[in-house]
Amino acid sequence: MNLHGGDIYKYKDKNLIDFSSNINPLGVPKSFKCKLKAQIDNFTKYPDIRYQELRATIGEYLDVPCNDIVVGNGAVEIIYKSVSALDVDQIIIGTPTFSEYKRAADIAQKPCKEVEVFTEDKNVGFENLYNHISHNSLVVLCNPNNPTGTLIDVETISRLAQKLHDKNSWLLLDEAFIEFTAEYPFNSMTSRLNKFNNLIIVRAATKYFGIPGVRLGYGLINNKEMVKRIKEQMEPWSVNTAAAIAGTTIFKDQEYIKKTRKWINDERGFLFKQLKRIDNLTPIPTQANFILIKSNVLDAWQLQERLLAKNILIRTPEGFTGLSNNDFRVAIKDRNSNKKLVAALKEILM
Amino acid sequence: MNLHGGDIYKYKDKNLIDFSSNINPLGVPKSFKCKLKAQIDNFTKYPDIRYQELRATIGEYLDVPCNDIVVGNGAVEIIYKSVSALDVDQIIIGTPTFSEYKRAADIAQKPCKEVEVFTEDKNVGFENLYNHISHNSLVVLCNPNNPTGTLIDVETISRLAQKLHDKNSWLLLDEAFIEFTAEYPFNSMTSRLNKFNNLIIVRAATKYFGIPGVRLGYGLINNKEMVKRIKEQMEPWSVNTAAAIAGTTIFKDQEYIKKTRKWINDERGFLFKQLKRIDNLTPIPTQANFILIKSNVLDAWQLQERLLAKNILIRTPEGFTGLSNNDFRVAIKDRNSNKKLVAALKEILM
Repeated sequence: MNLHGGDIYKYKDKNLIDFSSNINPLGVPKSFKCKLKAQIDNFTKYPDIRYQELRATIGEYLDVPCNDIVVGNGAVEIIYKSVSALDVDQIIIGTPTFSEYKRAADIAQKPCKEVEVFTEDKNVGFENLYNHISHNSLVVLCNPNNPTGTLIDVETISRLAQKLHDKNSWLLLDEAFIEFTAEYPFNSMTSRLNKFNNLIIVRAATKYFGIPGVRLGYGLINNKEMVKRIKEQMEPWSVNTAAAIAGTTIFKDQEYIKKTRKWINDERGFLFKQLKRIDNLTPIPTQANFILIKSNVLDAWQLQERLLAKNILIRTPEGFTGLSNNDFRVAIKDRNSNKKLVAALKEILM
Repeated sequence: MNLHGGDIYKYKDKNLIDFSSNINPLGVPKSFKCKLKAQIDNFTKYPDIRYQELRATIGEYLDVPCNDIVVGNGAVEIIYKSVSALDVDQIIIGTPTFSEYKRAADIAQKPCKEVEVFTEDKNVGFENLYNHISHNSLVVLCNPNNPTGTLIDVETISRLAQKLHDKNSWLLLDEAFIEFTAEYPFNSMTSRLNKFNNLIIVRAATKYFGIPGVRLGYGLINNKEMVKRIKEQMEPWSVNTAAAIAGTTIFKDQEYIKKTRKWINDERGFLFKQLKRIDNLTPIPTQANFILIKSNVLDAWQLQERLLAKNILIRTPEGFTGLSNNDFRVAIKDRNSNKKLVAALKEILM
């Protein structure tokens, strides 16, 4: 099992502010807490093996037919099972990115190529990607990308999907962070799902809604045969009862969604501006709820150590492919925490 | 995805007594409900990717070293990942039994043979099994077996494990129902785990503790290399926060365990005796919390239909390999429900 860069459990005796996980700081939605407490005795039943109610609520949330939805034990299960269900000759992963795509390819024993896509100039990155596309392949992209925060527009994605379609190839698009972007839902490919039968959109229900411990991911696929093949790879009852209950409340929690939009729109700009003013740091412009930062003097581990002394945990480059030793990632948190991070970085670097 | 025989969600508008799932009727332990409610905000963190506290509590419960424990999203995850991690030439499954072993072998694309082990005479069954054992193979047995309720003693299992060891082969022993047996813990192989490095014991934390919706299974393996290989197959964070919290309370809940032992010891004898008196039914002697019954006139689906009219759901043979159309399974429930089942069967059959 891979370890991931910011391991809060390693420091469980310290009272850290955790900038290493990209989780909505508004925390567990009240609507979910109430429903889980009220239905706590439901744990004594097996979940519905077909997850009919859960898929219906997701379908309503995204205006997507229930039969195009596959639910899983977190987005990672959808990624792993999709990669293993697809009968392709090559997997092309756009980097720098989250290392689990590579790991999924390795476990499925499929040849895998990493191609730099999320470069400073997106056009150069995409040209690079186009040069590598072959017949009967799978391209994996994260949008907005983790850890760079880069967002690719739907027109560009659509052209890529069409090109891949022409080459009998697939696109797996990880939209785990899409709801945090300013123009959501207009930059999500869900609205074009019905245009492509070679597109797998992966979504994580639980980052935006602050409940990663619940484990609820889902895939959107307008292709009956592929839905069937992914389900054939899955273990029964892989989505637990808490996740099934969460799915029936969080997507309808307008108060939580409204508060989240206000928070991210305020804090993304604030934190980025503050970080930009710090000597020897170069934050990368982001559309997501995290910021990748290049450190010009200390490497990521040195910086992590100095920040730990101030009870702050950041994400070092393990868990990503294609980063340098001087790259680190911070989550965007509440104003008070963000201020503490900025103050700590200033003390260390200025 | 396989559908399993008793699908309560198919009949969600009816208020059924569910004899199709083998779940402890005492329901969700209070100790778990209290702790989950108190720690409900923990859902906003990722679970510990190494599950250190959870493995420590399981280790304490069974007196097994933490490093020999792998936790999973239900026992099925441990079964699937073990089967796919083992580099064997053949998988031999003792039947009649739960169909997920066969499915795990099929998904891992490993040759698989089904051998009748749980016959009326256990000696005949075991002789049959010994005749089929080959070098570099995996034998899968469920103990006590689902759906027959047959228990194999530790001496017999140990001899088999030794024989398999001599043939460079493995034994996967599914002890999901072992805690329900009268002589537990003396009939569990956990106490002999340290004697065999070719033994994988699979346990489900959540049947005995009445919380299948929580999804918590674990494997016990006294073999560092195999533990590593199974973990390499697993997706990160596959055990959710509710399951991790459950693991830290249920195994210490002596009140729940005591009540459960009293209930199963009373009801197993009661229900079996009552069923035996019904014409045209042959219940198979059981050591577990369920009873396999042979129906001499109606087939399982006809009987299911008649019982549904009386708001009772039983388990038909789908989901098992090696059963006949006249076999059905019932869970052992509380006295009141058990009486209702008996009365309904009498009305239909006598």
